[in-house]
Amino acid sequence: MKKQAKAAITPTRAEDYPEWYQEVIKHSDLAERSPVRGCMAIKPWGYAIWENIKQVLDSMFKETGVKNAYFPLFIPLSFLEKEAEHVEGFAKECAVVTHHRLEKGPDGGLVPAGRLNEPLIVRPTSETIIGDSFSRWVSSYRDLPVLINQWANVVRWEMRTRLFLRTSEFLWQEGHTAHATKDEAIERTKMMLDIYEKLAEEYLAMPVIKGRKTPSERFPGAVDTMCIEAMMQDRKALQSGTSHFLGQNFANASDIKFQSAEEKEEYAWTTSWGVSTRLIGGLIMTHSDDDGLKLPPKIASSHVVLLPIIRKLKDRSKVMEFTESLAKELKEKFYGLRRVEVEIDDRDIGGARGWDWIKKGIPLRVEIGPRDIADNSVFVGRRDQEHNNKTSLERNRFVAEITTILDEIQKNLFDRAVLFKRQHTVKIDETGRFKEFFTPENREKPEIHGGFALSHWCGSDECESRIKEDLSVTIRCIPFDSENEKGKCIYCGRPSTNRVVFAKAY
Amino acid sequence: MKKQAKAAITPTRAEDYPEWYQEVIKHSDLAERSPVRGCMAIKPWGYAIWENIKQVLDSMFKETGVKNAYFPLFIPLSFLEKEAEHVEGFAKECAVVTHHRLEKGPDGGLVPAGRLNEPLIVRPTSETIIGDSFSRWVSSYRDLPVLINQWANVVRWEMRTRLFLRTSEFLWQEGHTAHATKDEAIERTKMMLDIYEKLAEEYLAMPVIKGRKTPSERFPGAVDTMCIEAMMQDRKALQSGTSHFLGQNFANASDIKFQSAEEKEEYAWTTSWGVSTRLIGGLIMTHSDDDGLKLPPKIASSHVVLLPIIRKLKDRSKVMEFTESLAKELKEKFYGLRRVEVEIDDRDIGGARGWDWIKKGIPLRVEIGPRDIADNSVFVGRRDQEHNNKTSLERNRFVAEITTILDEIQKNLFDRAVLFKRQHTVKIDETGRFKEFFTPENREKPEIHGGFALSHWCGSDECESRIKEDLSVTIRCIPFDSENEKGKCIYCGRPSTNRVVFAKAY
Repeated sequence: MKKQAKAAITPTRAEDYPEWYQEVIKHSDLAERSPVRGCMAIKPWGYAIWENIKQVLDSMFKETGVKNAYFPLFIPLSFLEKEAEHVEGFAKECAVVTHHRLEKGPDGGLVPAGRLNEPLIVRPTSETIIGDSFSRWVSSYRDLPVLINQWANVVRWEMRTRLFLRTSEFLWQEGHTAHATKDEAIERTKMMLDIYEKLAEEYLAMPVIKGRKTPSERFPGAVDTMCIEAMMQDRKALQSGTSHFLGQNFANASDIKFQSAEEKEEYAWTTSWGVSTRLIGGLIMTHSDDDGLKLPPKIASSHVVLLPIIRKLKDRSKVMEFTESLAKELKEKFYGLRRVEVEIDDRDIGGARGWDWIKKGIPLRVEIGPRDIADNSVFVGRRDQEHNNKTSLERNRFVAEITTILDEIQKNLFDRAVLFKRQHTVKIDETGRFKEFFTPENREKPEIHGGFALSHWCGSDECESRIKEDLSVTIRCIPFDSENEKGKCIYCGRPSTNRVVFAKAY
Repeated sequence: MKKQAKAAITPTRAEDYPEWYQEVIKHSDLAERSPVRGCMAIKPWGYAIWENIKQVLDSMFKETGVKNAYFPLFIPLSFLEKEAEHVEGFAKECAVVTHHRLEKGPDGGLVPAGRLNEPLIVRPTSETIIGDSFSRWVSSYRDLPVLINQWANVVRWEMRTRLFLRTSEFLWQEGHTAHATKDEAIERTKMMLDIYEKLAEEYLAMPVIKGRKTPSERFPGAVDTMCIEAMMQDRKALQSGTSHFLGQNFANASDIKFQSAEEKEEYAWTTSWGVSTRLIGGLIMTHSDDDGLKLPPKIASSHVVLLPIIRKLKDRSKVMEFTESLAKELKEKFYGLRRVEVEIDDRDIGGARGWDWIKKGIPLRVEIGPRDIADNSVFVGRRDQEHNNKTSLERNRFVAEITTILDEIQKNLFDRAVLFKRQHTVKIDETGRFKEFFTPENREKPEIHGGFALSHWCGSDECESRIKEDLSVTIRCIPFDSENEKGKCIYCGRPSTNRVVFAKAY
């Protein structure tokens, strides 16, 4: 990683990557830790990214016939217990509601009162509660498919948390569908994964590998879990979205039955799929540099900031007039599904102003001073280029070309991320090399260390768990595009038919 | 209330209003009760209304400079206790999280485990947790105002619940702002109430009275609570939105301080304001009739359903082709902030099909049969007119005029609601007449019974609570437009300077 002479973020990525990540979030004003254990407050600059992700995904979902709905936050314990693997998977991280009021305790302070007959679990995911509705909605094959999505908060009590990447409460969407046939359900599982891939690559500019999880990494209760995996700049993997084929497991548990066209009673085939605010963590770690956040224009909180330069009071009205008329004109243009979003920052704080916006990752910074106005031009800095590499552009040309420039930035961020991922994805066939690749002592030698290892795996749980124990490395996925290729398991040497993706992961 | 010869909903409004309400929701497929006490599942047809309300409000909020953010679901008990009146107001209806995992109990079933040091309250409202963030965000007058909104779920444990009107969990938006001066905070409180009025009247077609609550009806911890109140068809009031001026109470509790331009340390002035999915209950009860739901076009889940009429198999492809090309053309048009939304229902279920859509309240039903196609026309039914009052319209004219027709329907619904409210809003100056107006035995005589009574009130808590006890009637608000008028309190005869709105309420 290149270390800049003078970086806006301390420490730099090379110095302390995890700390750098926290500092980028702080300086870009995306979110903050809250006093509630493991929860975060998402600040406006961060929430706007989520709103943009929502808008894009929601419109892609709806195009495939999915409709939004909303289901209860609370799940009765008995519901969660309906699917054995499912409850097993979530029991260790459940927020449990046990009382429904507060009353004065013996020492005068308020204490929980009104004990519930049955504890309620704050949803960690909603298969069981939505399945309960589906069981009422579905009675004939004519009622199928049911294609539902909900935008919601969920809670998974985490002991070690990190803003966006792992928080006890997070925001997500969870899609739930029920189908008359197995094939249709599998097709839907893949269709939604394709949408996640499109979101990641075309909007977040974050290249991903699509594949399926090994049995040990499946969603609790799923028959098959498909995923997209991205590479962060510390060369670790981030699971960025999952789509589950649930077979008839949850239909059995929730009694989702229908009468087929042949008048036979059958259980439905269900799927579920979700992405969360974790994507924002992925976004940060894919693109940001030692000067702070870099936002891909298509989901950026805002596209351009106008920075009027007013050195003398007499210039003020002229500069502000030019600035506001430019803002008005820019805001009338469309970029993707939304209009070009423009900030004006006329704070009189000197050079700190420009740096604030660099750290916030806004794609374009436009300086407007009396001399620019005299030339009818603007002075443009792009976040995908060095901070001091600014260009004077004729005002109307800038207006005319802004969406083209934004597209260029989007493309540059993606290309850079693709290159980075390619550079650190390596076919490895020798156990020694594999171990070297994942040994922390080699961390400073990117030429031999870290990233995605494409290696053969025999398919046994045993090798998988030994690798995890020895090297803290997991199989991220069995890629869909891995070719049939004979080889030997990287750990035990037994025969294997294709390569899988090994990596350390968040 | 007019009783129709043959109504689609049983019972009718006149027969059993509360039961009619539940049946309208059921037949229009808006929502259903969930197995979780007091919670509901909002089905796609109902959730789409909420999405439309969100879109309208969100854009109005943002125009005033408000930005969206997101804060934790859980509030530490100690936070809630920071404002004495506030915790007092919510203590009786709090869902309390006490444990963070599940483990096998003595009898083999799962039981709550991992007791929390401090109980967490599932937010009933977020003044205290957002105030905590504000205390970090604000240090100088330059940081003010802070204008924040969050779209979220909240929980208030209710013993008696009704879909949309009163549920233990509901969806809402809650705005929270902090200002440097009292006047600015009061201005913001009013500004947001004006937005709620606009939403109610121009979008939900639901006329409201704007005013302020009496001290006993204020939000716990507020200095002043302003509200909009609507009249339902059973002539009861529905509080439909509130905007609170919180003075410096919550700034004190959460330590939101700033250094003023004069370098003095001061507490900020805060406001909060919210509307919820309760509005959908108001919408149902304002417009629906004995045939089911009636949706105002501006927030309708969908605008028009196309009903191809295919009696012979040979007609099918021609009719479907005409239908789909019409749908495509309609969908390209804009109505308000979104495109015209079109459903196609080609189920072969006879007359039940048309009635399904009447009950669902879609503004326009369009029948398309071979004869219509031969005439290049469509057969249009409007939900604001009798169900058998349908009109043949030339196809292209229908396309050209659809937004005009939708506007007409919107206006008709509003006008009817305004008339209803006017007819049942009465100035009453005699105690006997006042009691008669609110005596349940007179319920069947709308000419003398029920609605909004505009009467004088002395301003005492005592009269207010006696009236509540004797007649189950509350002061809905002190209207902003009530004129200065000398009179005598309707209950005690002491002098009063203006009329207030008395009504039974949800």
